[in-house]
Amino acid sequence: MKIQAVKGTRDFYPPQMAVRNYIQDGWKAASKRNGFEEYDGPIFEYLKMYQVKSGDEIVEQLFNFTDRGDRHLAIRPEITPTLARMVNQQINTLPRPIKWFSMPRLCRAERPQKGRLREFFQWNVDVIGIDDILADAEVIFTTIDYLRSAGLGPDDIKAKISSRRMLAAFLVGAGIAADKLDTIYPVLDKKPKLPPAAFNEMLLKVVSDENLVLKINDFMECDKLSDDDEWVDISDEVVAAYKELDDLFGLLRKMGVGDYCVYDPTIVRGLAYYTGPVFEVHDVKGELRAVCGGGRYDNLLKDFGGPAVSATGMGMADAVLEILLSERGLIDKIPATKSLDYFVAYTDSHLLQNAIELTAKIRESAKPDKTQNAEFSYKKGSFGKLLKQASAVNASKCIILAQEYIDKKELIIKDMQSGDQQSLTERDFLENL
Amino acid sequence: MKIQAVKGTRDFYPPQMAVRNYIQDGWKAASKRNGFEEYDGPIFEYLKMYQVKSGDEIVEQLFNFTDRGDRHLAIRPEITPTLARMVNQQINTLPRPIKWFSMPRLCRAERPQKGRLREFFQWNVDVIGIDDILADAEVIFTTIDYLRSAGLGPDDIKAKISSRRMLAAFLVGAGIAADKLDTIYPVLDKKPKLPPAAFNEMLLKVVSDENLVLKINDFMECDKLSDDDEWVDISDEVVAAYKELDDLFGLLRKMGVGDYCVYDPTIVRGLAYYTGPVFEVHDVKGELRAVCGGGRYDNLLKDFGGPAVSATGMGMADAVLEILLSERGLIDKIPATKSLDYFVAYTDSHLLQNAIELTAKIRESAKPDKTQNAEFSYKKGSFGKLLKQASAVNASKCIILAQEYIDKKELIIKDMQSGDQQSLTERDFLENL
Repeated sequence: MKIQAVKGTRDFYPPQMAVRNYIQDGWKAASKRNGFEEYDGPIFEYLKMYQVKSGDEIVEQLFNFTDRGDRHLAIRPEITPTLARMVNQQINTLPRPIKWFSMPRLCRAERPQKGRLREFFQWNVDVIGIDDILADAEVIFTTIDYLRSAGLGPDDIKAKISSRRMLAAFLVGAGIAADKLDTIYPVLDKKPKLPPAAFNEMLLKVVSDENLVLKINDFMECDKLSDDDEWVDISDEVVAAYKELDDLFGLLRKMGVGDYCVYDPTIVRGLAYYTGPVFEVHDVKGELRAVCGGGRYDNLLKDFGGPAVSATGMGMADAVLEILLSERGLIDKIPATKSLDYFVAYTDSHLLQNAIELTAKIRESAKPDKTQNAEFSYKKGSFGKLLKQASAVNASKCIILAQEYIDKKELIIKDMQSGDQQSLTERDFLENL
Repeated sequence: MKIQAVKGTRDFYPPQMAVRNYIQDGWKAASKRNGFEEYDGPIFEYLKMYQVKSGDEIVEQLFNFTDRGDRHLAIRPEITPTLARMVNQQINTLPRPIKWFSMPRLCRAERPQKGRLREFFQWNVDVIGIDDILADAEVIFTTIDYLRSAGLGPDDIKAKISSRRMLAAFLVGAGIAADKLDTIYPVLDKKPKLPPAAFNEMLLKVVSDENLVLKINDFMECDKLSDDDEWVDISDEVVAAYKELDDLFGLLRKMGVGDYCVYDPTIVRGLAYYTGPVFEVHDVKGELRAVCGGGRYDNLLKDFGGPAVSATGMGMADAVLEILLSERGLIDKIPATKSLDYFVAYTDSHLLQNAIELTAKIRESAKPDKTQNAEFSYKKGSFGKLLKQASAVNASKCIILAQEYIDKKELIIKDMQSGDQQSLTERDFLENL
């Protein structure tokens, strides 16, 4: 029976796994560098958890199932609801700020296409318990800190920043009922992806006022944040939201990443739960989907049955990132799939037992700060063939047991980089390990 | 709305995540030390993939579902079928031996109990393409190499080794039809877990011969491997299988782990696909379930539509292992959930901007070989309070911006371990980073 992998999933053969590890190691290092602690949740949760606040797009894309106990479950399409559940469960004992990161595997039943898979990994960074724009700056800085460490400069990527709070205040100030906002956001979110006519038609359907359509377009096409803009004075709430966003840019400049950041009011984010600043990182050329996105979600913990606690965070999937890094030539120094300190080989089959014994001793000499990765050859061979094998498995040194071993217990040790070769008795070699 | 986690799943708060990372880092290091390359597959596969050869126990425990495209899918309960599929797909280009490891998250719809969860992580180590007992020795050695590095000695654990091939040859030699074997293995697998009478009754049902029940009990109660045993001479195949197992013990002694290994014919393994040596690691006290299990499965790649290629491997779940390590006091040196090089604090709110700027510069100075994990305090505080905070986040050094900073741009730098305190201008500090 021949079985294929399911479409939209990935097989990570060692070379692909090395790339995944390279990306995830970078995420982890940036998280730790910025003082975040790692957490994770289960791969499946109760289905209803995702039906609360995740936005229609995600709910439609759930892989859900019913278990033998008749529980309605779903594979996680995002980790933020899990985070909200976990934090709520320990809200009284967790010291604040809660600065956590995770790199969950997520699944969404989407149509697979470039940069969109049905299964992917997503770096999540969240700051919970800080009702201050400082936390948003910390999340955006950490995001850029990683991207910068991966080799992407301000000419490669931009963090496009906007404010759901300011947008809401603007829309309400312009005459839209507050309870209609949730149906408008997903439409506004589509503006950058649609031709103007199509967007305006869609928007008119939800706001039912041509004048409002014009006003909203004006707001969303203004690409400089300035309090000279006439819409700023619509209401005190707009002013306050404007001030907050302006402070955020000030903090990001202080943090040294101002050149990565731009104001972009077309950034709305599809998810229903955002309440403050929102942002996405895009490639400057605009050829790819967003590399990541996030924002403030101050009501989510409360919506999940907890107290009202401020929160802000970011999610970055591996798929688009990997395309971007590889298009910019930044995935070239990846560690090999295998890296041996020693490859132990032999020219005569009856030396196998000695090779095995020696290899085991090398492995045993490993210390926390010193790897002793070693492998024995499964077959005897000529010198040339054995050195070829050693090179294929990326060994630093090749040890050969040959006639000299039979005669006087001497090992031939070849440095695979320099080509230097020396002979050493097994005893001397083991003593100096 | 208050939602709980699903029973049998785990939330990994930072302290639990640190334990999981500690275990997985150990698995990874042992794998690399022994020359294995990392791979992974998708979290779900076609349901039928698990219905082929996995054994009834696993099939009953599948979380399965149907997607919008009417595909019958299942969350992976083990990774070996994925491994077989992946290797088959590239069988002509993969250099042999294929020595691969993985640490997949797996799900089984079991009744949760001590050491058994519905979701867990499992270290897998496999050698494919080597039709030699040497590969089995390599797998068992690697397993023990990890357990040994985690601090478990031969008084704590034993690898109980047996041979499915020898068992099959013995059973056939004793008069059982070869096509009946697959129904007998799951019964024999239960012998150590059942009272003798219950086991005998179960066995009689499948072999229908009281004399055979006695013979099988004799075979399974012999705990020393010796060719003096009368059953060895039953057939040439038994002799060959005996010889192979004897060689395996010889190799393990050469590798220096002989004292961890014992012959135990009650090790049968439930999975249907084993064909040669099989083994399980158990705690010597016998209080826990098996820590891991594995064996040779020479037909699986062929059963999955590939060529006949030899294979042998091992799977170790994290649940029992974690219980064992913690009962033996071996989970105590786990890295903290957070580890900072610097905690940057301030005594006056208007110094926050300077603290942020300094923190960003420290983070920016990180190098691949030098972490510069740094965090700024979200709030001002008194000296005492700030040092307490620095200690709570496990910082090596606490930098305080106070009056000296306002007066002469001087930082107060406190070494949290030694208690030493020094003053340094910000400029000097940054130059020496």
